[in-house]
Amino acid sequence: MTNVIHAYAAREARGTLTPFQYEMAPLGAHDVIIDITHCGVCYSDVAFIDNELGSATYPLVPGHEIIGLVRAVGTAVDHLEVGQRVGVGPYRSACLHCSYCTSGRENLCTSSELTIVGHHGGFASAIQLSASFAFPIPDGLQSTIAAPLLCAGITVFAPLRRHAAPGRHVGVLGIGGLGHLAIQYAHARGCEVTVFSSTPAKEEQARQFGADHFVAVKQAGAMDRAAGSIDFLLSTSYGGLDWSALLNVLRPDGRICVVGSSMEPIGIPAAMLIMKQLAISGSAAGSRSDMQEMLAFSAQRGVRAQVEVMPMEQVNQAVERVRSGAARYRVVLEAPSAGA
Amino acid sequence: MTNVIHAYAAREARGTLTPFQYEMAPLGAHDVIIDITHCGVCYSDVAFIDNELGSATYPLVPGHEIIGLVRAVGTAVDHLEVGQRVGVGPYRSACLHCSYCTSGRENLCTSSELTIVGHHGGFASAIQLSASFAFPIPDGLQSTIAAPLLCAGITVFAPLRRHAAPGRHVGVLGIGGLGHLAIQYAHARGCEVTVFSSTPAKEEQARQFGADHFVAVKQAGAMDRAAGSIDFLLSTSYGGLDWSALLNVLRPDGRICVVGSSMEPIGIPAAMLIMKQLAISGSAAGSRSDMQEMLAFSAQRGVRAQVEVMPMEQVNQAVERVRSGAARYRVVLEAPSAGA
Repeated sequence: MTNVIHAYAAREARGTLTPFQYEMAPLGAHDVIIDITHCGVCYSDVAFIDNELGSATYPLVPGHEIIGLVRAVGTAVDHLEVGQRVGVGPYRSACLHCSYCTSGRENLCTSSELTIVGHHGGFASAIQLSASFAFPIPDGLQSTIAAPLLCAGITVFAPLRRHAAPGRHVGVLGIGGLGHLAIQYAHARGCEVTVFSSTPAKEEQARQFGADHFVAVKQAGAMDRAAGSIDFLLSTSYGGLDWSALLNVLRPDGRICVVGSSMEPIGIPAAMLIMKQLAISGSAAGSRSDMQEMLAFSAQRGVRAQVEVMPMEQVNQAVERVRSGAARYRVVLEAPSAGA
Repeated sequence: MTNVIHAYAAREARGTLTPFQYEMAPLGAHDVIIDITHCGVCYSDVAFIDNELGSATYPLVPGHEIIGLVRAVGTAVDHLEVGQRVGVGPYRSACLHCSYCTSGRENLCTSSELTIVGHHGGFASAIQLSASFAFPIPDGLQSTIAAPLLCAGITVFAPLRRHAAPGRHVGVLGIGGLGHLAIQYAHARGCEVTVFSSTPAKEEQARQFGADHFVAVKQAGAMDRAAGSIDFLLSTSYGGLDWSALLNVLRPDGRICVVGSSMEPIGIPAAMLIMKQLAISGSAAGSRSDMQEMLAFSAQRGVRAQVEVMPMEQVNQAVERVRSGAARYRVVLEAPSAGA
C-alpha cells in the first residue's frame, strides 16, 4: 500500500491514455480510499477524453464505473468497513445539506462533484472520495457485471423508477450500453416493453433482454402502427431523433425522457405538447437512493450488463471500442489486482 | 322555452358572426339543457373562427366559457337540479369508462368531445351537453367573473395543481387572460411568484395580482439575474420564446409547462435537459376534478378574472377585442336574459 496512485491519463484532447502517477491527498475524515479492481468504460469518458463539451482539463484520468475494495475509511465514517466491496458512479461528493440533498436528489445538488471532472477517476489503482458516494455491492453481483450498472445502469434505472410503474407500456429507443439495460429493468419492473431500433437485426436480442414488441423505426409505416401506444419512452439514442414521430407513439399524458445526448434542437413546437398533455424531459444519472435500489434490484431480479472484459493495460483499445460503437454492450477494465 | 336555440355563428373562416338558429336535439337521458346567461370569449374561440388549425367546420358557434341555469335534466341525471347555476368549459363529454376517465383525467380521454368542435357552443341562448360536464358554480362567484375561469382559469389552475406545491418558486410568463389568473392562483397556493413579461409597464399590475418579483425579459441582464431561481415556469405566451433563456432560469429538476400555443420549434437540444434534469411539457385544460377544485378554490381564496362585460349582441366587437389583444384581460358576453 502506497499513497502513489498508478493511473492512465489523457494529456490532451483526443490523446492516447498513458501511465500517470499522482500522490493521493491525506485521508479526509469523511472519505474512503478504494483499491480499484474494475472500471467500466462509458461513452461519457470518451466524450471527456475528446473534450466534446469543451470543459475537460488535462491530464484527465477517466473512469466513473468503479468497483473496488475499501482500503481505509476516515475517522467520521462508520457505514463502510475495510475490505468491503463497493462501487462508485458519476458523482464523488455533494453537500448533503441543501434542499436537493436532503430530499434525496444529491445528483442535482449544485455543489455536487463529478468523479472525472476536477478530480482523477477510476482508470487507476485507487481512488479517494466522499464515503457517502461509495455503495456496497450486493454479493449476488459479479464485479465485471456490476461496474457498468454504476453509470449506464443508474442512468436508465432512475427515470424508469420515477416514471414507469408496473403495467405501464414502456418504450426503449436504442439497444446499446444504456438500452440493453433499460429493456431488462423495464421488463423486470412489470412493464410492457416495446423496443424502437433502427437495426432490425437486433430484434432477437431485444426480445432476449425482455422486449415484448419490436419496432424497426425506419421501416415504412412502423412508427404509424405504434401510434398512441407508449406511456413512457426512454430515449438512449445519440442523435437523429424524429421528434414528431416519437411524440406520435405516446399515449395522452405520455413522456419522452432523454438520457442519450442528442445535440439536435427539438424540432417540434411546444403547442404539440398541449393537446395530449405530453412532456419531454432529461434525467441526470441518479441519486444515492436510486443507486441503492438499482443495485439491490439488479441482484434480486438478475439484471446483468452484457460486457467485454479487458485488462486495464489495454485501456486504449477499450476506449476505441466504445468510441467506435463496436462494444457489445459495455467494456469493463480489470486491474491486475482483480484476481489477487 | 323552446327547442330553438338562438346563436351567433361564423359561416366561413374569419367570418363575421351572424344570428343563427338551430333546433335542439331531444333531451338525452344523461344530458342537461342550460339556459345561457354569460359566455366568455377565449382566444381559442377566435382561433376556431379564423380556422387557424384548419379543422373548423361552419356554421361555427363559438363559446366554451359558459354560465347558465339548468332548464332540464335527463332521466338518468340526479346530481343537478332545475334552476341551478352551472358552468361549462372546453369539454362537453367523455366516455367516463376508459383508463383516463376512471383515473380522473377525462380531458385526455380519446373519445372526449370539445364544446365547440362538432357541436355548437355558448354564444347562444342555450346548450345541451353531458350533465357530467356541467359544474355547479359556488355562490361566492359572480357569473361574469366565473365565466372565464371555465377555460382560462382551469388551463392555468390544473398544471399549478399538479406541479406547484406551496413554498415552490413559480414563474408566470406573460400577463394576459391566462397569466393574470395564474399569478393569483400561484400566490394563493402559497408559492413565491415571479412574473416574466416583455412589458415593464405591467409590473404594478403583476404585483397587484400577487407577484413577489418582476422580470422584464427584454431588459439587458434581467434573465441572467433570474438564473437558477424557478422550480416551475408556466408559459402563457403565444410565441417568441427564447428556450435557452427560459431553461436557464430553472432550478435543477425544474419544469416549463406551456399553455400558450407557441408554434415555433423548441430551439434547444434535448441534451440541455439532462444535466439539470429539466422538463418541458404541455397541459390540456383540466379534468372534472381540476374543475371542481378550481371553482371551490377561486371562491374560497378570492381569485377573480378581470373582465370586460359586453352584451351578447356585441359579439363581433367582443371577438375583435380578443383577436387584437386589447382585452384587459377577458371579455364576457352577457345574454339578454342575464338580468331576468
